[in-house]
Amino acid sequence: MQSIQAAHLHLYNSKMKNSIKERRTVRKFSNKPVPESLIYELLETAFRAPTMGNMQLYSVVITQDEAKKKDLATAHFNQPMVAEAPYLLTFCADFNRVTQWCDLRNAHAGYDNFQSFLNAFSDALLVLQTFTVLAEAERLGTCYLGTALYNPEQIIEKLGLPTLVFPVAALSVGYPQEYPSQVERLPASALIHKETYQAYDAQRIEDIYKEKEALEVNREFVRINKVETLAQVFADIRYKKTDNEYFSEKLLNVLKQQGFLK
Amino acid sequence: MQSIQAAHLHLYNSKMKNSIKERRTVRKFSNKPVPESLIYELLETAFRAPTMGNMQLYSVVITQDEAKKKDLATAHFNQPMVAEAPYLLTFCADFNRVTQWCDLRNAHAGYDNFQSFLNAFSDALLVLQTFTVLAEAERLGTCYLGTALYNPEQIIEKLGLPTLVFPVAALSVGYPQEYPSQVERLPASALIHKETYQAYDAQRIEDIYKEKEALEVNREFVRINKVETLAQVFADIRYKKTDNEYFSEKLLNVLKQQGFLK
Repeated sequence: MQSIQAAHLHLYNSKMKNSIKERRTVRKFSNKPVPESLIYELLETAFRAPTMGNMQLYSVVITQDEAKKKDLATAHFNQPMVAEAPYLLTFCADFNRVTQWCDLRNAHAGYDNFQSFLNAFSDALLVLQTFTVLAEAERLGTCYLGTALYNPEQIIEKLGLPTLVFPVAALSVGYPQEYPSQVERLPASALIHKETYQAYDAQRIEDIYKEKEALEVNREFVRINKVETLAQVFADIRYKKTDNEYFSEKLLNVLKQQGFLK
Repeated sequence: MQSIQAAHLHLYNSKMKNSIKERRTVRKFSNKPVPESLIYELLETAFRAPTMGNMQLYSVVITQDEAKKKDLATAHFNQPMVAEAPYLLTFCADFNRVTQWCDLRNAHAGYDNFQSFLNAFSDALLVLQTFTVLAEAERLGTCYLGTALYNPEQIIEKLGLPTLVFPVAALSVGYPQEYPSQVERLPASALIHKETYQAYDAQRIEDIYKEKEALEVNREFVRINKVETLAQVFADIRYKKTDNEYFSEKLLNVLKQQGFLK
């Protein structure tokens, strides 16, 4: 029995690792229906993720309605998968529910602050990523939408999020209609530090990024964007200082509006 | 072949779901050694988690040295598992590496702001949770330490984190020496909203929390703390307004110090 169990564990682990090793973000979804019961079941399982003091500081909004998804797509810079995927899941940091519970129980909730925001933000992401791993193991495809942090005020309005609720990220979910090639990653050793943080120097940065920069797909990316280096594609075109500063200011204002920055 | 593959997929999925469904936080670790190569392999696989624009805005510090773990434990309110577990992994938001790369490549990095902080914070948590799922499937135990957000300045100093690097959370990792009973969760339906957010009213809050409040373990919790309600244990004792406000102010100061709030 022992050895059969061990063999099952091995099979299971290697398959699970493979699902994560082989993952790619999916942006084109098939018409194959995804049972709502499956989404619920996977979410319920994902709610087993660690959560601060077992307070479960999150809510998940499942949007299936076509018109509603189209409406929400505008908040996500009209990325087509938002409306096209059968499900849009918006994972929210939520201290509203706990605060209402405290109010009803003669307890003095004090969660209208930045620390509590980051606690709930963390809780929501741990659930989101657990759901992602589960969904991909079911051969569903997902696309992580960090755009929730760019236009949170629009999502708040469209989903009716009350105070002490904030949209952390969204996920498009459905069966894939594409099997895109996998994007590269930096060498793992570049991201792992032993005992303490090992500061990077110029030579180490050269070593870490040389393979990435040499890839034909990234060289093409530089040519298309008419710049000199891949780093310029990121810093001067895609994720620019002026944009980051504009969205930072907006983000802090929305956090205030939602009651998280007293 | 098709049906054998389908059977394998089913076995694999149900086992993976079970690993997550049955998870509990582990706080006591055995002496059984964990190969460093396993930790590296699981981290490398976890680096497949979604990341903003494929920038991989994180670093992981692996601490094994006994004296170093003991030193770090003070930053985590001396929780015993920090020094006792064979590994302490500190997951950091990291825009330092990308910024250095941009500097070397004549690109104008603009990541010294709040938006970029939250982007890197998210990246780090997606990797952390992917690692957690992988590690638990290998029968390792983990304990999530949100305490990094309480004393970040101590962790920054002890690990030597430079500007644009911030400790998001830590994880104690090792083989379990205990199999604690599983804590309860709220009914999944309480956390899931259809199409838009459904605001909670007093009756719904009563319905959602009644099972939790009725559990003997939670009733005992109320008695031990000499309060009247479970909500008071959370709001008036464990996660108090005055503490949250104190740590919020410190957190914002440390973010400034690390260069994320220009």
